[in-house]
Amino acid sequence: MGVGHGCRLRGEPLRRQKKFYAWGYTDEDLTPEEIMPWEAEIARRYGLSGFEVTPPPRAEEIALRAPRFAVPPALQPIVRLDHLTRLEHSYGKAWFDACRMFMRSVPNPPDAVAFPENEQDIVRLLDWCDAIGAKAIPYGGGSSVVKGIEPEAEFEKVVTISMRHMDRVLEIDPISQAARIQGGVYGPHIEDQLRDTPFTMRHYMQAYRCSSLGGWIATRSGGHYATLYTHIDDFVESLRVVTPSGRLETRRLPGSGAGPSPDRMFIGSEGILGIITEAWLRLRKKPSFRAATSIRFKDFHAGCEAVRDITQAGLYPANCRLLEAREALPGIPWENEEAVLVLAFESADHPLDAWMARALEICRDRGGVADEGTLADENAHRSGAAGAWRNKFIRAPYYTEHAAARGILASTFETSMTWERVSDFHGKITRIASDAIRQVTGREGTVTCRFTHVYPDGPCLYFTIGGLLDKRVMLDQFMAVLTACTAATVEHGGTTTHHHAVGRFHRPFYDRQRPELFARALRAAKRELDPKGMLNPGVLIDP
Amino acid sequence: MGVGHGCRLRGEPLRRQKKFYAWGYTDEDLTPEEIMPWEAEIARRYGLSGFEVTPPPRAEEIALRAPRFAVPPALQPIVRLDHLTRLEHSYGKAWFDACRMFMRSVPNPPDAVAFPENEQDIVRLLDWCDAIGAKAIPYGGGSSVVKGIEPEAEFEKVVTISMRHMDRVLEIDPISQAARIQGGVYGPHIEDQLRDTPFTMRHYMQAYRCSSLGGWIATRSGGHYATLYTHIDDFVESLRVVTPSGRLETRRLPGSGAGPSPDRMFIGSEGILGIITEAWLRLRKKPSFRAATSIRFKDFHAGCEAVRDITQAGLYPANCRLLEAREALPGIPWENEEAVLVLAFESADHPLDAWMARALEICRDRGGVADEGTLADENAHRSGAAGAWRNKFIRAPYYTEHAAARGILASTFETSMTWERVSDFHGKITRIASDAIRQVTGREGTVTCRFTHVYPDGPCLYFTIGGLLDKRVMLDQFMAVLTACTAATVEHGGTTTHHHAVGRFHRPFYDRQRPELFARALRAAKRELDPKGMLNPGVLIDP
Repeated sequence: MGVGHGCRLRGEPLRRQKKFYAWGYTDEDLTPEEIMPWEAEIARRYGLSGFEVTPPPRAEEIALRAPRFAVPPALQPIVRLDHLTRLEHSYGKAWFDACRMFMRSVPNPPDAVAFPENEQDIVRLLDWCDAIGAKAIPYGGGSSVVKGIEPEAEFEKVVTISMRHMDRVLEIDPISQAARIQGGVYGPHIEDQLRDTPFTMRHYMQAYRCSSLGGWIATRSGGHYATLYTHIDDFVESLRVVTPSGRLETRRLPGSGAGPSPDRMFIGSEGILGIITEAWLRLRKKPSFRAATSIRFKDFHAGCEAVRDITQAGLYPANCRLLEAREALPGIPWENEEAVLVLAFESADHPLDAWMARALEICRDRGGVADEGTLADENAHRSGAAGAWRNKFIRAPYYTEHAAARGILASTFETSMTWERVSDFHGKITRIASDAIRQVTGREGTVTCRFTHVYPDGPCLYFTIGGLLDKRVMLDQFMAVLTACTAATVEHGGTTTHHHAVGRFHRPFYDRQRPELFARALRAAKRELDPKGMLNPGVLIDP
Repeated sequence: MGVGHGCRLRGEPLRRQKKFYAWGYTDEDLTPEEIMPWEAEIARRYGLSGFEVTPPPRAEEIALRAPRFAVPPALQPIVRLDHLTRLEHSYGKAWFDACRMFMRSVPNPPDAVAFPENEQDIVRLLDWCDAIGAKAIPYGGGSSVVKGIEPEAEFEKVVTISMRHMDRVLEIDPISQAARIQGGVYGPHIEDQLRDTPFTMRHYMQAYRCSSLGGWIATRSGGHYATLYTHIDDFVESLRVVTPSGRLETRRLPGSGAGPSPDRMFIGSEGILGIITEAWLRLRKKPSFRAATSIRFKDFHAGCEAVRDITQAGLYPANCRLLEAREALPGIPWENEEAVLVLAFESADHPLDAWMARALEICRDRGGVADEGTLADENAHRSGAAGAWRNKFIRAPYYTEHAAARGILASTFETSMTWERVSDFHGKITRIASDAIRQVTGREGTVTCRFTHVYPDGPCLYFTIGGLLDKRVMLDQFMAVLTACTAATVEHGGTTTHHHAVGRFHRPFYDRQRPELFARALRAAKRELDPKGMLNPGVLIDP
């Protein structure tokens, strides 16, 4: 029962093969025009002539432990044991995941990967896991950057349950602007299925292309909208969930006040309570009006004040992302301390002149200077600073493997903080991150910050860190730096994650942040829904 | 240990005495100018020459069972056993509560009413309840209309814990626009304490004057804003809660993705998990720009289409309440089927011309005709149809006792529904309610509907029912009608409550609506936080 278990999966030949070791599909990569200047700039920063580049792993270079159990005949049509499938489902897509793949080190693959076609299949799979004492790991697109879908060494048996075949938009309600959608569908495939309608979900995030609706809900993803509808939480109208104790469906309700929200118990539950098989999601009409521009500020602090004023003004821009110019835009020297605000309004209903005019007035009052000629242009969001940001945002995950191959530290962490402490907090975290990079790597690194989502009471601060690692110990170095950074966000009052989930990586920090009594209540709820603790153990809470 | 236990409570002499038997304070009532036309119209409707009016009860007319336990000396300063205090805390403020008071029937008063001054007092009180085996009922303003704070006959001992002395705004953060506020403070006293600041909570509901912040959070109150920030849920930044298992505090975070939201477990928990002692609440600047008007539609359906378009347009009006003209406005005959939309925008930041202009355009496209001369007027919300609605909204609770005194059925129930089913649902519920009134009372009654809060995917439908009861059996008649109505909302897919909570009254309907597995999870969480089931048993779930 090694490579090629032989089960045929619906639609499989039509699917593109994802890279097992890094972000994206096997037939795509950064272009040399993208890699070369990026590599050159980092080399220049560290006074290197170039990098030793570890070649990406081939699947056959990585030995996997044999599956530790057999699959009963009735389940064989939906369970795979082949090498590549198990390899692909062993890690998420963080830098440390790519790094371990480049190290050809995968000690704890899932024993089997199941591809249910419907809820009844999930029930059968959970019954099977129960019978053989296996842990079950719910799996959407596998884009976790927090070890959310990674089997642990202690698990004696592991079945990963991939939802990728439950990928349909089942029903569209054009009057209420909502759709019933299966949990396993990836972002682009949702929009494909909405193509002939006036609607869109408009919930994009960096992992959009290879992440699933069920995964978004389970991890409280943060999407396209920088204000108002930031998290997937606000899109969910109702849910269907299969738990080891049975199935559950909540009602489609525009609003309710009947007890604590059942949906909210599963939103953010990271696969420990059940598998989200379907949801009714709120859609909106595709935007036909756009106004976008970018505004320069003398420094991050000035931009921060403008963003605060905008969020407190009740204008609700679709985009309102404050970036350090040197990180976001091409050709800006490191010494430049300017910040740029990428600002956009969109609507399917009305022109946005009044909205943009007032936002620009606010920016001017805070010393911002708007870029010229990009207002109210249909393609405004694809040109200028907004376009540069958009491109960088989409391409960023593809750099991960190239950084890992070169021993370059390239990662992010994000948190949130109320406005009154943002300036102090931003300074502290930047200093702690810089110190950690210097101490661990022996050289100066880079730490930059952006606001990816903003609220009337504070922003999500999204930090990007860079540095030069020693390839012999780079995984340890990386983990030391990232751990120091994340610990600092929690120690200084932030959240361990604004939209990347807790998983196994953030557990120690989450444990410090989360009230202990809430952990006890959540644990009790889990015992009720998953009495044997088979679902994704180690994530969020201990059994 | 009868009347006059003798403990002195902080600030007590300064407090106005609330009516124990009905809504409001002892020194206020409807004016004859309000009562007479109201009474005359109902008499005319039912062909009566007048009503026999039961006089309101005096406290001494109602015998109460003696307290079933003594108060230990250490707790005597914060626990009252006097007749009036126990009487006042026996019922909420629904029609059926007033009715039972007018019947001089209070078989299950709390044995004692405690007034903690701080969290440590609450801990001591819960320890005491634990020691003597008493049930503890958390009590805010006592404005429940769903038997949320009513001791049950089976409770062998009951201590009601009134939070009214924990009534301070403790801290204001003007930068993040948030305040730390104690759970026991009533609505007006929050605004009093914010008077010298630029801020307001702006969360008004009918019970605003005599209901508390902790109560709002525990019951998921719906407030001033008809769109966007409809429920208290969205105002809560963090919470402090005392449970029988200990204390808990969540972090102030503008947004987070770290696991299921701990706040959301307590929001809507109706006192079964713990007592909310403090919360950080999001404030906003007092509005300085207003645009308000009202728009007439030929019928409710036409208004409904306009409201749907407005909510889906992303305009976010502060008020957007669709009313039947005959119910909302003076002098409209019952045969008139017109609907009126009370529409208002408000802002502390910018003029609202563009917003209002587009909303009016939408209304015109749906055949709406705007009232003249009320646009962009600072006092627009206090004049015309908007003003009439506002006045009716504020005065409505005062009619309850006068209806009960006359055997007049006057009550409401509310639910929510997605737009695509609203028309059918509205028809069904109206018919079922009308039939129930006719069958139970033997005459035609009145059923009207309004939208109090609206969402892109559907409205909150708020029904008002009227009829003539037989005073000898009016409580049974009332309960039969209201039960039929509420059961119908749930049977036809709605929620048993949009913003009035579940309490004991809605329990049977809530049980049908709520997924059974969620009930099990919630029960497990409760056992962890309240192992002996002392907190408000019978509400939401059985132990």
